[in-house]
Amino acid sequence: MAKSAKTFRPKARVPKGLRDTGAAQVRAEAEMLGKIKAVYESYGFDPLDTSALEYADALGKFLPDEDRPNEGVFSFQDDDEQWLSLRYDLTAPLARFVAENYDGLPKPFRRYQSGPVWRNEKPGPGRFRQFTQCDADIVGAPVVAADAEMCMMGADVLEALDIPRGQYRIRVNNRKVLDGLLETIGISVEAEDRTHMTVLRSIDKFDKLGRKGVELLLGDGRKDESGDFTKGAGLKPDQIATVLDYVESGLAQASADRAAVLEGWGKVVGDSAIGLEGIEELREMDALFTAAGYGTDRIEFNSWIVRGLGYYTGPVFEAELLIETKDEKGNTVTFGSVGSGGRYDGLIERFKGVKVPATGFSVGVSRLQAALQMLPGAKSETRNDVVVVLTLDADNMAGYQAMTRELREAGVRAEMYLGGSGMRAQMKYADKRGAPVTVIEGEDERAQGMVTLKDLILGTEVSREIEDNAEWRESQAAQVTVPRGEMVTAVKAILEKHGLLHRG
Amino acid sequence: MAKSAKTFRPKARVPKGLRDTGAAQVRAEAEMLGKIKAVYESYGFDPLDTSALEYADALGKFLPDEDRPNEGVFSFQDDDEQWLSLRYDLTAPLARFVAENYDGLPKPFRRYQSGPVWRNEKPGPGRFRQFTQCDADIVGAPVVAADAEMCMMGADVLEALDIPRGQYRIRVNNRKVLDGLLETIGISVEAEDRTHMTVLRSIDKFDKLGRKGVELLLGDGRKDESGDFTKGAGLKPDQIATVLDYVESGLAQASADRAAVLEGWGKVVGDSAIGLEGIEELREMDALFTAAGYGTDRIEFNSWIVRGLGYYTGPVFEAELLIETKDEKGNTVTFGSVGSGGRYDGLIERFKGVKVPATGFSVGVSRLQAALQMLPGAKSETRNDVVVVLTLDADNMAGYQAMTRELREAGVRAEMYLGGSGMRAQMKYADKRGAPVTVIEGEDERAQGMVTLKDLILGTEVSREIEDNAEWRESQAAQVTVPRGEMVTAVKAILEKHGLLHRG
Repeated sequence: MAKSAKTFRPKARVPKGLRDTGAAQVRAEAEMLGKIKAVYESYGFDPLDTSALEYADALGKFLPDEDRPNEGVFSFQDDDEQWLSLRYDLTAPLARFVAENYDGLPKPFRRYQSGPVWRNEKPGPGRFRQFTQCDADIVGAPVVAADAEMCMMGADVLEALDIPRGQYRIRVNNRKVLDGLLETIGISVEAEDRTHMTVLRSIDKFDKLGRKGVELLLGDGRKDESGDFTKGAGLKPDQIATVLDYVESGLAQASADRAAVLEGWGKVVGDSAIGLEGIEELREMDALFTAAGYGTDRIEFNSWIVRGLGYYTGPVFEAELLIETKDEKGNTVTFGSVGSGGRYDGLIERFKGVKVPATGFSVGVSRLQAALQMLPGAKSETRNDVVVVLTLDADNMAGYQAMTRELREAGVRAEMYLGGSGMRAQMKYADKRGAPVTVIEGEDERAQGMVTLKDLILGTEVSREIEDNAEWRESQAAQVTVPRGEMVTAVKAILEKHGLLHRG
Repeated sequence: MAKSAKTFRPKARVPKGLRDTGAAQVRAEAEMLGKIKAVYESYGFDPLDTSALEYADALGKFLPDEDRPNEGVFSFQDDDEQWLSLRYDLTAPLARFVAENYDGLPKPFRRYQSGPVWRNEKPGPGRFRQFTQCDADIVGAPVVAADAEMCMMGADVLEALDIPRGQYRIRVNNRKVLDGLLETIGISVEAEDRTHMTVLRSIDKFDKLGRKGVELLLGDGRKDESGDFTKGAGLKPDQIATVLDYVESGLAQASADRAAVLEGWGKVVGDSAIGLEGIEELREMDALFTAAGYGTDRIEFNSWIVRGLGYYTGPVFEAELLIETKDEKGNTVTFGSVGSGGRYDGLIERFKGVKVPATGFSVGVSRLQAALQMLPGAKSETRNDVVVVLTLDADNMAGYQAMTRELREAGVRAEMYLGGSGMRAQMKYADKRGAPVTVIEGEDERAQGMVTLKDLILGTEVSREIEDNAEWRESQAAQVTVPRGEMVTAVKAILEKHGLLHRG
């Protein structure tokens, strides 16, 4: 150890696209996850934890046909030469778990899980290679009442986090409606040329690019502001017109009337069986939303919700925040998606060979937390609430230790200074630590059976101007000297004054 | 997707040495971690989260000199051909974090972190390749008062988990004392032959093998019951005698008198400077323990605590549970270590080139949780508290949805059945789910404005004997029919009767 430290000194750096999360954010995320889980629990979901690693073949929607399987996924071989992958979401491990334990599970099976997932992708601003998801899924529920419940639960989650109604929307579509649209314009979803994916991706861009942009993407292609050209789907004008009709039949009525959106979609889809089935499913969901009092101020039907993942087979939904923010270029945009989900009746089929109906909702934890910090009235970072007991006399460590313990036993977070420097350094430490109070017992105080308490919140201004030790003692406004026996009471009084007593 | 499902069907299996964790254990672990963190917080530690991945060179105490670096660690190259490793503990990432952010941190820096760690090792019974740790560390505290605090906090953690005093012990030693012992018998800790490690490993086995076993391991070697031979350290008889003196000077006084242990060690260590320094440090710690009222029923000095990790440089400690259990062979043994820690003043030096004092304590979360389940009075798995609303009439889903919502809004976990099967299957589902109550509203009930509540806990016995649907309705003991408007009150009354209302 000592030797290698001399011969090789690694550079300490967090890996690219990964990050360290400090105290305030860890606490805020834990609080947020607690509220999300409480909603999930109230809906009857039970927790399940799968491990971070899965066999690559069990995990992979991208199957191994290369030397290094699963692009986008971190994969490696263990000592048995088995390929393992770090999970890239919480849905694929759930599919593996259900397939492995199928007979023993109650059907439907409701579980929630939160935890990190990993992507072997190019990181960028706000794009990390590890991030947290918090998912709830129902496996074995064929009825769209399950999907309706997911949408309502999504709304309930956002309101449990104090996002005002009107500032978010659960936007719902159905892959069957989109399949019907494609069928109507004569595009096969099975075709090798994947034109259908280009069409879906174009529709998905409607809220960013508008009608004109989507029209270009559906046709020959579109050049963006930077001059980059995106090749289009190459549709004919009448095909393009139908797709735009579809998109706008959602648009005109969005946030107004779900039944009217379905009517518009019905006209576009014509007599496509799959399309009509999709509309009928949404009609059932609408009835449930309406009966439960979820108006279009919470849940809307929306043409351009597509959801890129290949495994969706029915209703799909996104939870979008409508609060405004700035994009990289400084333009005002709505915050966008903080959660999403949908029905994936084919995912477990990979293992079992038979369809197992499933639907789920996933919260993007980091994005949602970022959004919460933008809400008016969001808590700014709270002051730390830890009381620092200075250790001015090395022979009296036991005495300082006792003071610290007394505070802890009274429910106050407390630590004694353990760095071995003098008073100035100790006060600086307490300041850097964000401590609201320091407890000071020097020789003089001890001789008199007293302790001095310094209120660092009140004293912040004063302390910056004072140059020598003696003056510290004299800045009476921010400090008080009390009998040793009254220390705990006096500390609690200062904490209470600043609203720092009994933090949750 | 659909195509590959036809051509390739992976086997659904959790990878070797990994596991899925069910609801009861996830909840129990969360509750336990909450209590541990509350103790850490009360001691002034703030949370920090580092990501699961680190650059291999920054992480590794085993440095890359092979094609595949870091034996025992899961490592792989990312798209930039950088070697990344899954963290194998929470200490190495902390060292990286502190080195990277050194100037901005308050010193001492107190942080706690809990999360999974991974080992690329052969799994075995109770040995997993992913497990959870929960660590608290102080970086930048040179004084042993910091180590003393770690030991006392370890005891406080165990008592916060209701482990009775006397059923655990924090066992403390000092690597400097062990270095002094080695110096006294003329064995270099720097020597290439690593005899010193063999001696330390032999001492470490004292509680398992006793005096005779350790004597053999210090000498030529020892053959165990299965006939396997372990080569010994090859010490001479007088060296062996000194080591055994040392071990037994701890043994005789363990749980009796810390000062007496130090006196015994002092005689063995003689005038080794490093040994005397170690004893002096422990003397200071003893004074702090005693002043704070931590007797030998909580914290003892113990000769055979060694801690295998190379990076320890001072006081080391283990939290051991003394409750009895059976080993693989059916022998009664004490449960053993559930946490450990120590001082590691050299770990951050790897990056910074200067020593940065540090000490920490780490809880082995899964092991501790397993131990808690063995305590007398441990909660057995609690009944689920989710109420199931049956959906007997597909045209009335909105009505069932409304009932479910009312229950949730009254603070009751509730779900409506979403599987699309008949009544028998739905009752079976509720039973498999562990639900205490089902809410039944068939046509008859609805016509009368009533709902039937079935108490499944009371009814468990009855239900197993009943064969036909009509009889269900007649088993009056376990069910009650109430007006629809009184449903919530009546459900809560049943839950309350079974102690299932307002679960934490």
